[in-house]
Amino acid sequence: MDDTLALSLEEVRTLAHRVLARLGLSERQIGPVAETIVAGERDECGAHGIYRLLSCAQTIRAGKVALDAEPAVHDMAPALVRVDGGGGYAQLAFETGRPILAEKARRCGIAALGLNNCVHFAALWPEVEAMAAQGFAAFAFTPSHAWVAPAGGTRPLFGTNPIAFGWPRPGKPPFVFDFATSAVARGEIELHRRAGKPIPLGWGLDPEGNPTTDAAAAMAGSMLTFGGHKGSALSAMVELIAGPLIGDMTSAESLAADDGAKVSPLGGELIIAIDPNGFLGAAAAEHLARAEQIFDGITGQGARLPSLRRYEARARSLANGVRVSKKLHDDILAQLD
Amino acid sequence: MDDTLALSLEEVRTLAHRVLARLGLSERQIGPVAETIVAGERDECGAHGIYRLLSCAQTIRAGKVALDAEPAVHDMAPALVRVDGGGGYAQLAFETGRPILAEKARRCGIAALGLNNCVHFAALWPEVEAMAAQGFAAFAFTPSHAWVAPAGGTRPLFGTNPIAFGWPRPGKPPFVFDFATSAVARGEIELHRRAGKPIPLGWGLDPEGNPTTDAAAAMAGSMLTFGGHKGSALSAMVELIAGPLIGDMTSAESLAADDGAKVSPLGGELIIAIDPNGFLGAAAAEHLARAEQIFDGITGQGARLPSLRRYEARARSLANGVRVSKKLHDDILAQLD
Repeated sequence: MDDTLALSLEEVRTLAHRVLARLGLSERQIGPVAETIVAGERDECGAHGIYRLLSCAQTIRAGKVALDAEPAVHDMAPALVRVDGGGGYAQLAFETGRPILAEKARRCGIAALGLNNCVHFAALWPEVEAMAAQGFAAFAFTPSHAWVAPAGGTRPLFGTNPIAFGWPRPGKPPFVFDFATSAVARGEIELHRRAGKPIPLGWGLDPEGNPTTDAAAAMAGSMLTFGGHKGSALSAMVELIAGPLIGDMTSAESLAADDGAKVSPLGGELIIAIDPNGFLGAAAAEHLARAEQIFDGITGQGARLPSLRRYEARARSLANGVRVSKKLHDDILAQLD
Repeated sequence: MDDTLALSLEEVRTLAHRVLARLGLSERQIGPVAETIVAGERDECGAHGIYRLLSCAQTIRAGKVALDAEPAVHDMAPALVRVDGGGGYAQLAFETGRPILAEKARRCGIAALGLNNCVHFAALWPEVEAMAAQGFAAFAFTPSHAWVAPAGGTRPLFGTNPIAFGWPRPGKPPFVFDFATSAVARGEIELHRRAGKPIPLGWGLDPEGNPTTDAAAAMAGSMLTFGGHKGSALSAMVELIAGPLIGDMTSAESLAADDGAKVSPLGGELIIAIDPNGFLGAAAAEHLARAEQIFDGITGQGARLPSLRRYEARARSLANGVRVSKKLHDDILAQLD
């Protein structure tokens, strides 16, 4: 028995618009939020497609989203811009800041965009992919909720604090990666808890700060960073540069602001763009072509490029649409009642 | 029997100057190279102190250092500068570019310095610590020699590709980390090989691309990145942004240029500086104070700040000087013959 349903990407888009409108989100906010959800479903990032409409519903119903927020642009310096999201979703704030970031990076060679006071429900790859598609090397960082203990520690302090990077490839989709600095996604531990399955050592600590294989204990205690003290150092960096550096909250402050609602984090995001033409001038094409040797060196030995799976899924979805779980689809339609 | 020798930091400095002068390095090049060696010995970074005089000797005697190179500054864009090290050491190139990077970051809010055509013998923390001491958040990246396989691969492609970060702490030494994106330093595997000890799984692959616990097989085959596919993605990023992005070599190209000499890598380095005052204006002090809560949250649960060990060693060395191995000291003095 097939428990999935075929949807065109346009049907996914319509579904997202209907649900978000029913939740009271303004048309201006809905546009880029819906596009991010369509992109997640299109690229078969299960947790970042229409499934996220449920977390949007939860966050909005908890009163944690400013439904008709209009981003405010603050031009801080020749190569810096801040966009205050006004408590709305990060997507509209990014779309507002993106052309300014691009213009500043073209003019100055490097520039940074700080998003403030935004609700974060999505991955960071859409941001770096968008900048890389415009020809920039791009980085993005955001804190989340304080769920992760520092290496050698016993208690939550850091968020899952993702790092994303994009690189422009002439004639090809950008090289993109985007990963949490936690050992695994929080949802992964939750799935083990629901299934009654143990988690590997290295994913979490119990509430007393001891290593645990008990998923429920790790959910109640702390997650751990990937890569030991190195991942922990990177997680601290993300807290600093996408928190205080741009005048926004740490993961601990975001969790305090959540106040038990258990919904999407509120806070900042830092995006940095570098224009290869700035460093290289007329030689940019030659050096971008030389960068392709690195990708050839990866794929030529049977290793994967981090973005490849998404691009393969994208090609399938653009040609054939997507299949979504009927159960999930029903749960989403129930949001319209 | 004590097999160590007490030296003042001034004696370390004098030793470094004498050896480097004997090797024919110009006075201009010697200054910042010697200071980096003094800093490594002072902070008890064993492998980055006077021990490095031996690798300098080897690299110089192999004819791989332009002994009297004078860095050339290329002002590329309002927020970008390149310094061509002319085949000399990266230290003089960085000292040449540092005030320009600082001035550009103050004016534009963010700026980047690309060092080109430099010999790299040292860690990256001196660069980010220097920038953070001037009030900037700073990042540094450099490729090395192609010794490390990508995740899922079988052959060397990446360098040990370190990432360093510095953050200004009012009234305190900066928060600094600096780590290789390889699972461990190459020297660590070599020490196991010399001692005839097995290495843990996850450090390296044998020449056929199979996981190995044989240190000699890993030296002949590939090292691995830290943190699986995440560390591998970061290593690829370092190749791109400190290689082609600044018009310089990849780790594979640097190893080819080494041509069997087995000496220090030649190539580029990227340093990015962000001025907190740019994003925050008059509120910078308030938000830097808020960042201290992150550090308090780390140390308050018994976890370590990455830079703490070095700063503790520094305080000891500044008060009492250092102790170095007599054998090492003799080996270094032999360079003067």
